[in-house]
Amino acid sequence: MFPFEYYLPTKVIFGEGTIERLGEISSSFGKKAMLVTYDEEFVKSVGFYDKAIKSLKAENIEVISFFGVKSNPAVKHIREGIEIAKAEKPDVLIALGGGSVIDTVKAMALGVFSDGDIWDIAIGKVEATEAMPIVAVVTIPATSSEMNLVSVISNDEIKRKEGFGSPLMFPKVSILDPELTYSIPVLQTAISAADVVSHLMEGYINHNDPWAPMQDRFAQGMIKNVMECMDRLLKDPKDAQARATIMWVSTFAWNGFYVSGLGAFDSPIHMVGHSFSAFYDVPHGSAMSVSIPAVMKFHLQDRIEKYSVFAKEVFGIEGEVGEKTAKAGIDAIVDWFKKIGVPTSFKEANMPENELDAMADDVLVTAKNWGIETYDKKMVLSILKLCL
Amino acid sequence: MFPFEYYLPTKVIFGEGTIERLGEISSSFGKKAMLVTYDEEFVKSVGFYDKAIKSLKAENIEVISFFGVKSNPAVKHIREGIEIAKAEKPDVLIALGGGSVIDTVKAMALGVFSDGDIWDIAIGKVEATEAMPIVAVVTIPATSSEMNLVSVISNDEIKRKEGFGSPLMFPKVSILDPELTYSIPVLQTAISAADVVSHLMEGYINHNDPWAPMQDRFAQGMIKNVMECMDRLLKDPKDAQARATIMWVSTFAWNGFYVSGLGAFDSPIHMVGHSFSAFYDVPHGSAMSVSIPAVMKFHLQDRIEKYSVFAKEVFGIEGEVGEKTAKAGIDAIVDWFKKIGVPTSFKEANMPENELDAMADDVLVTAKNWGIETYDKKMVLSILKLCL
Repeated sequence: MFPFEYYLPTKVIFGEGTIERLGEISSSFGKKAMLVTYDEEFVKSVGFYDKAIKSLKAENIEVISFFGVKSNPAVKHIREGIEIAKAEKPDVLIALGGGSVIDTVKAMALGVFSDGDIWDIAIGKVEATEAMPIVAVVTIPATSSEMNLVSVISNDEIKRKEGFGSPLMFPKVSILDPELTYSIPVLQTAISAADVVSHLMEGYINHNDPWAPMQDRFAQGMIKNVMECMDRLLKDPKDAQARATIMWVSTFAWNGFYVSGLGAFDSPIHMVGHSFSAFYDVPHGSAMSVSIPAVMKFHLQDRIEKYSVFAKEVFGIEGEVGEKTAKAGIDAIVDWFKKIGVPTSFKEANMPENELDAMADDVLVTAKNWGIETYDKKMVLSILKLCL
Repeated sequence: MFPFEYYLPTKVIFGEGTIERLGEISSSFGKKAMLVTYDEEFVKSVGFYDKAIKSLKAENIEVISFFGVKSNPAVKHIREGIEIAKAEKPDVLIALGGGSVIDTVKAMALGVFSDGDIWDIAIGKVEATEAMPIVAVVTIPATSSEMNLVSVISNDEIKRKEGFGSPLMFPKVSILDPELTYSIPVLQTAISAADVVSHLMEGYINHNDPWAPMQDRFAQGMIKNVMECMDRLLKDPKDAQARATIMWVSTFAWNGFYVSGLGAFDSPIHMVGHSFSAFYDVPHGSAMSVSIPAVMKFHLQDRIEKYSVFAKEVFGIEGEVGEKTAKAGIDAIVDWFKKIGVPTSFKEANMPENELDAMADDVLVTAKNWGIETYDKKMVLSILKLCL
């Protein structure tokens, strides 16, 4: 085990109907709130916007709504939000949505107190020293953003997607109300499930600790949980137990818990997948289901023992530790992605195959920003070719 | 999954040598610290006291040392500590020890700001509204006290042991330095391991959620981790990886994480075991290794499916779901306790067998305090007889 610091001060309120507590929770920060969410028409059609407003109004909270967050949240839109927040001076920022909305609000929370541009904060050129309090209401469980210090935002002008972290960005309170997720189409939940699995795989298959049973068993167990939840949701998209379980698993998949003690590790799955979204606006989870098998295949020879254990513990594949068992593990996860309906190749994700060179360069920029030194352009191109 | 709130704001600093950061961390609260620990002679002989003092002195922190904490910490001693803290007015309370020391400090942290007696706070007669900041340095991993809001203290005069909780009692920072545990005798670590397993078993075998894969897989995996760590430590008591892993598992075994979502459940293992310590000052972990098999045997018929899964997932026992497999699971955990050298009966724990009736009454007081309504005296006596 490697040294680490663990700090997750976000309070989680979990359970059906807990969105009704939004007003009570927000009012502890003040009586003026800025609520950030997706397109107005959409959020008004699905019901959770009205529920949020009703709860806030019941506590006499003045609400400024800021609509229009899209997946892979755009820095341009975030800048708009920051300007409004600077002018309106709310007491609390409320994120009503999934990772994109929460990440938007996290960036806004820093941006409001900074004279610098939020993109410069994201790329580390400007330091943020203060942040507004954040309350998150999760409507799409996937990213763990509701319980971590990371925000990932996209800059269309330069086709870049940037992740950055600060303890200032922990939501104070996150409301996890599984009922809000019952109406999500199963395919969209499948994309989220691929995202959750990518988080659990990233640390699990790429860390370099020769003995990490706590972290490895957690990852194996949680991957199995996601798969069981998807099995149930494919049968019944409103299965309350499966919706609740996948929501709580999602939160702990990438909040820093299970990677604690693993030391530094490369994140090739995300390093590669980020570029898919930056280039073609592919949903993050679909990018992950394409990059996971490719990265696993690329590293097969160095990870035979790990993949063999993965095959056995996650898929129940019996067999000796060796290339055959390891490969069976990769095949099994590809089959699972196919079963839940997410893409496992550029073709299936409807991504053009003619920009691999430019994409490899983009991946290398990400690698450099993340301090990943393992991969040169040839290696990245090999991984990308395994995605085709 | 049942509704819950999850909030664990304690920051953990984990790694070999991290005790050297005690001064730096404590100084963020002020320049006068009260350090609470075990007997003076003992802590000065094992080295960690000197390390703590050195780190504090390097930051020019004035230190008042308060020695003499014993296992099953005595309310009388805690009252002394509170009086000293009230007179000396330190800025921070430092716990240097295991669960007993941390629980002592938690009680002191509340007691300092209260006019009421700490026992009255423990039994809920007086409410505490404020607390001193706590920094914990864990020297014996077992109880999760370093990362939860619970304190368990004992009142010899009335032979009672009382657990009570308050968010005010979360340590601000807990330093988990596995190096401090290398010299713990393996038998003592085995007793701690039984305690950790009791935490993982309590929620796992007693909850009533028909489908809780996240919580169940976590418990199963962590129990296996504890067992693997003990296997390694029986061979080499200084095995750094095993020491580190069991330390981190211990922290997450009873900090509220894995029981989140399980709803209310009875805690018969602790309900019964508490009385062993209250009556005969048996170490908490040894009380647990006696009570676990008895409670499992008592509930065998209602828990056949659960125990069968336990047998398979934790011990790899193949077999159909049924009484035979369920019993094999109980036998396996008894065998494991025997292997690591902890008692599995009154006889092995050197407890007299002639006070069962009085003990049953004591257990029922605990049951009442904890809101457990399942057990009458006859049932408790049956469990106690299964402990003989």
